[in-house]
Amino acid sequence: MFGTARIVGMGRVGSVLAARLRERAVRPGEEGAELVLLCVPDAAIHDVAAEIAPGPWIAHVSGATSLSALDPHTSRFSVHPLQTFTRARGAEQLDGAFAAVTAETDEARERAFWLAETLALKPFELADQARPIYHAGAAIASNYLVTLYRSAAGLFEAAGAPPEALVPLMRRTIENDFELTGPIARGDWQTVEAHRRAIRQARPELEPVYDALAELTAP
Amino acid sequence: MFGTARIVGMGRVGSVLAARLRERAVRPGEEGAELVLLCVPDAAIHDVAAEIAPGPWIAHVSGATSLSALDPHTSRFSVHPLQTFTRARGAEQLDGAFAAVTAETDEARERAFWLAETLALKPFELADQARPIYHAGAAIASNYLVTLYRSAAGLFEAAGAPPEALVPLMRRTIENDFELTGPIARGDWQTVEAHRRAIRQARPELEPVYDALAELTAP
Repeated sequence: MFGTARIVGMGRVGSVLAARLRERAVRPGEEGAELVLLCVPDAAIHDVAAEIAPGPWIAHVSGATSLSALDPHTSRFSVHPLQTFTRARGAEQLDGAFAAVTAETDEARERAFWLAETLALKPFELADQARPIYHAGAAIASNYLVTLYRSAAGLFEAAGAPPEALVPLMRRTIENDFELTGPIARGDWQTVEAHRRAIRQARPELEPVYDALAELTAP
Repeated sequence: MFGTARIVGMGRVGSVLAARLRERAVRPGEEGAELVLLCVPDAAIHDVAAEIAPGPWIAHVSGATSLSALDPHTSRFSVHPLQTFTRARGAEQLDGAFAAVTAETDEARERAFWLAETLALKPFELADQARPIYHAGAAIASNYLVTLYRSAAGLFEAAGAPPEALVPLMRRTIENDFELTGPIARGDWQTVEAHRRAIRQARPELEPVYDALAELTAP
């Protein structure tokens, strides 16, 4: 559906998409490419889009940004790969991940789904105005998972326990379809209080997070 | 090192430990067992221990509870399997998990490590007074991971996005050794503000958790 694509922005996401498109024989076009794929920071999308001469399809890969950032272009869509990327790995990072597609016309939708599937992503449609709420969910799931691990690892260090021991526990929590176990699930408030006292003493900066999450976890 | 063990309490943990000990040819003793393993709720450990006639080794599998809950027994230790268990699976749930061992004598430590390794757990030593802080870390890593997923899934539902799309993202965050990406890592505070506005509108009950975690995530 696209024979040539020009990627603007070679950060974490841009490099991975470029590598996958090369694998799938979508040629990297410069001038005259059928698709311009903006992989620039969210705040730069509007300015970079405005500088591109009208003609080709144009798309961004941002999670939270509206399609209107691509004004004045009208042949446009967005494909957001719902994944966290590291520079240590390549195009295989896309495999098995989902992608949020936003489009305003049937043709744009069809092209966006084609691009997502060519990248080996599993596309689903997302309304333009729902992008910030969707992206907040993605950030909570990934970025705050990092914060959760770091918080738990800090408590393990304070206890003299090895932080890597947390990894099999966290993996299994996901494998068990996020089934809740532990003191809150058992209604064991005495243990919850013991946690609170211990945190207050060893890592008081974690208390607001512990409390806010406890509140949300309790049935 | 123990030929017979009597397990008291056949909940999630007790059933799994009983199944694994059977596999390893540790016989389930009733009266006269060399080891009594208390797999009862934390708050019941003290009373159950007090009713057992002195003689055999006695141990509990609680994460947060002190060894003193096993008074007046002195041949005692604790082995806490650092894992979340589901009734849908069996003894294989222990494979690859760590275990926190607390003991007061060399003999008790040796027996506790033997038991952990017989269960196929990877033991590490934990000081008795460090148990609550250790267990708070474990609860944050596992129980609050459930809460994080549920929160993110609630936002996805509000956005019309499929919650199961979060799973490859969360798995990869762990695989990538908890490398932080996303708006906070990029210093993109405009997107963080957009998240906050969206949450306030769609799921205001999540705002305290979003804010407390944002505070902890920011460098």
